Amino acid sequence: MTQSRLDKLTASLRTSGLSAVALNPGPTLTYLTGVAFHLMERPVVMLISADRDPVLILPELELPKVELFSYKVQAFSYGENPSDWDDVFRKATQSLGLDGKRIGVEPRQMRLLEFRHVKAGAPEADYPDASTVLTALRLKKDKAEVDAMRKAVKIAQDALKATIPLIKIGMAEREVTSELVMHLLRHGSEPELPFAPIVSSGPNSANPHASPSERKLQAGDLLVVDWGAAYDGYISDLTRTFAVGKVDEEYRTIHQIVQDANAAGRAAGRPGVPCANVDKAARDVIEAAGYGKYFTHRTGHGIGMEAHEDPYMRGDNMQLLEPGMAFTVEPGIYLTNRNGVRIEDNVVITETGADVLSDMPREIQVVG
Amino acid sequence: MTQSRLDKLTASLRTSGLSAVALNPGPTLTYLTGVAFHLMERPVVMLISADRDPVLILPELELPKVELFSYKVQAFSYGENPSDWDDVFRKATQSLGLDGKRIGVEPRQMRLLEFRHVKAGAPEADYPDASTVLTALRLKKDKAEVDAMRKAVKIAQDALKATIPLIKIGMAEREVTSELVMHLLRHGSEPELPFAPIVSSGPNSANPHASPSERKLQAGDLLVVDWGAAYDGYISDLTRTFAVGKVDEEYRTIHQIVQDANAAGRAAGRPGVPCANVDKAARDVIEAAGYGKYFTHRTGHGIGMEAHEDPYMRGDNMQLLEPGMAFTVEPGIYLTNRNGVRIEDNVVITETGADVLSDMPREIQVVG
Repeated sequence: MTQSRLDKLTASLRTSGLSAVALNPGPTLTYLTGVAFHLMERPVVMLISADRDPVLILPELELPKVELFSYKVQAFSYGENPSDWDDVFRKATQSLGLDGKRIGVEPRQMRLLEFRHVKAGAPEADYPDASTVLTALRLKKDKAEVDAMRKAVKIAQDALKATIPLIKIGMAEREVTSELVMHLLRHGSEPELPFAPIVSSGPNSANPHASPSERKLQAGDLLVVDWGAAYDGYISDLTRTFAVGKVDEEYRTIHQIVQDANAAGRAAGRPGVPCANVDKAARDVIEAAGYGKYFTHRTGHGIGMEAHEDPYMRGDNMQLLEPGMAFTVEPGIYLTNRNGVRIEDNVVITETGADVLSDMPREIQVVG
Repeated sequence: MTQSRLDKLTASLRTSGLSAVALNPGPTLTYLTGVAFHLMERPVVMLISADRDPVLILPELELPKVELFSYKVQAFSYGENPSDWDDVFRKATQSLGLDGKRIGVEPRQMRLLEFRHVKAGAPEADYPDASTVLTALRLKKDKAEVDAMRKAVKIAQDALKATIPLIKIGMAEREVTSELVMHLLRHGSEPELPFAPIVSSGPNSANPHASPSERKLQAGDLLVVDWGAAYDGYISDLTRTFAVGKVDEEYRTIHQIVQDANAAGRAAGRPGVPCANVDKAARDVIEAAGYGKYFTHRTGHGIGMEAHEDPYMRGDNMQLLEPGMAFTVEPGIYLTNRNGVRIEDNVVITETGADVLSDMPREIQVVG
């Protein structure tokens, strides 16, 4: 499988005018190799050339991983002294004749640490952004990938269902988070979660990127839970919003609006329509209800090996949806310093429409 | 507290010839701001100037975080369309008059994503590696930091003690990992662990960077558990090696050698001695026993907010230990394709010697 992924990349390098790409540890490297490398203070870089065997530069103590590759790679390893590393990178880039050539990089993943060593090895090369070429590799999920995502959704849903009865008024957001994480693991998530869950209550729920705090749940709060699981390298990313005890009528109203927006966004996804349409479908519902200015982010993002990847459900993204593309639909309304709502599902485009992987009830549910 | 940390940095910028540093989300930014930002596809950058208020460039939806700062920052926010971002970065760098100046960066943390936007804003600036200046800020831990690390050690030890009775022959490495992670959370670790635990058995234990696999524990295996907890932003990082049932005499021998090397490394740490001495003390024990070539990595690394940070216990590191420096002592012997041993403790240098934060028994213990 990794061989055919590599072949697809080298073919697209040849048509895109790149001599090679330089990859550091991250989802693209894992996708192409099936081998797990970590970001650390020691640079690991794979150079994939359009016409020769790939080259891997790595610390000596990681050399055993070379045997896990399903295709031939040429390894260049270095010891513990950083002042020797540039030399090793120079030999590696020279072995592929890359200086002066175009070496594509992934700006979202590549750190200056790895980049400066690669550049020391090939100072006259150009380093264009190859995100488009690399993203295209992972953009359309095959059946095995969708099955893994479906399992990650099931684990996440089962974990939250097991956590809901434990949520009580007076519990801190952090305590709810710990219970949820334990259930994620107990239900089979990989220990490295795709992201730290967001459990935000009351005024914190009005901050879409809140971190769980010591704040204790109070009657009248909305409670946003944004969580996911990882299974076989693929992730889920869901959100549900609860009422803690009895809440203001306006909060029930905005919950219903967001629920309708979520449904409209899910319904808009099908092959051949631009990503922008998914955003517009959800946003129109919220704007028509008079809350447009409180929906402060895009409607969704792609998911797969990463919690955020292409394609993005943004109002200006005219990219057309195709079968196999997977993404979130997650409209929200955030009343700053008061309360917020978000409802998020995971969707995969099929030949004829869209398959919604998540099916947990979206209606407002009272906890506490 | 963050104000005094910021003052210390701006003072050292003035003496180091830097006009500013550019920081992206990571431990240094958290240390200086007390505010949590995440690495994502949207760049967040803080520009800290030697002589003006700091500038923060961030997505609009993160703007509420500006109110969490304990000192004045000037915020420049951008919307969802990436083609507008360079303009915002240009205004931000211009507001500090940074073009053509020296702007320090952290190569281990800064991605090309953030760097290229900063550089688009200040194309004529130099971007030297400011790791030394920034690392120095966090190098010596104060009492509150050591207390948090001590708590992170206690959580980790309590979690492993609770897990040991559950370990049985026939369990997969991944199952042991899940139990351990649940106990880490139950004992109070932050949900975002400092690193995914390593649970490696038999031949996998001979790979110092193994990932937990589906391999089932067998009688005769060594079992390496390398794990840690996070508490209040600070981490622990420990390793113990167990015997699964009855193991070969040679494995008991190498376990004792590593245990002696660990003790020697811990004993070598005190103010005024070079980091290299800690490495040498541990390595000498293993070399004298004839296993030198199987100890394939340095003896330790600094710990604090990060699982790997300065100072590094490496044979060529002549940096002198000072009170407050915190690091691991983790010698190992790895017999490739057979079994491996590592024993790791966490140490903080005091005014007179070293305080070993971890005290879990290091002797070989039989599980299964």
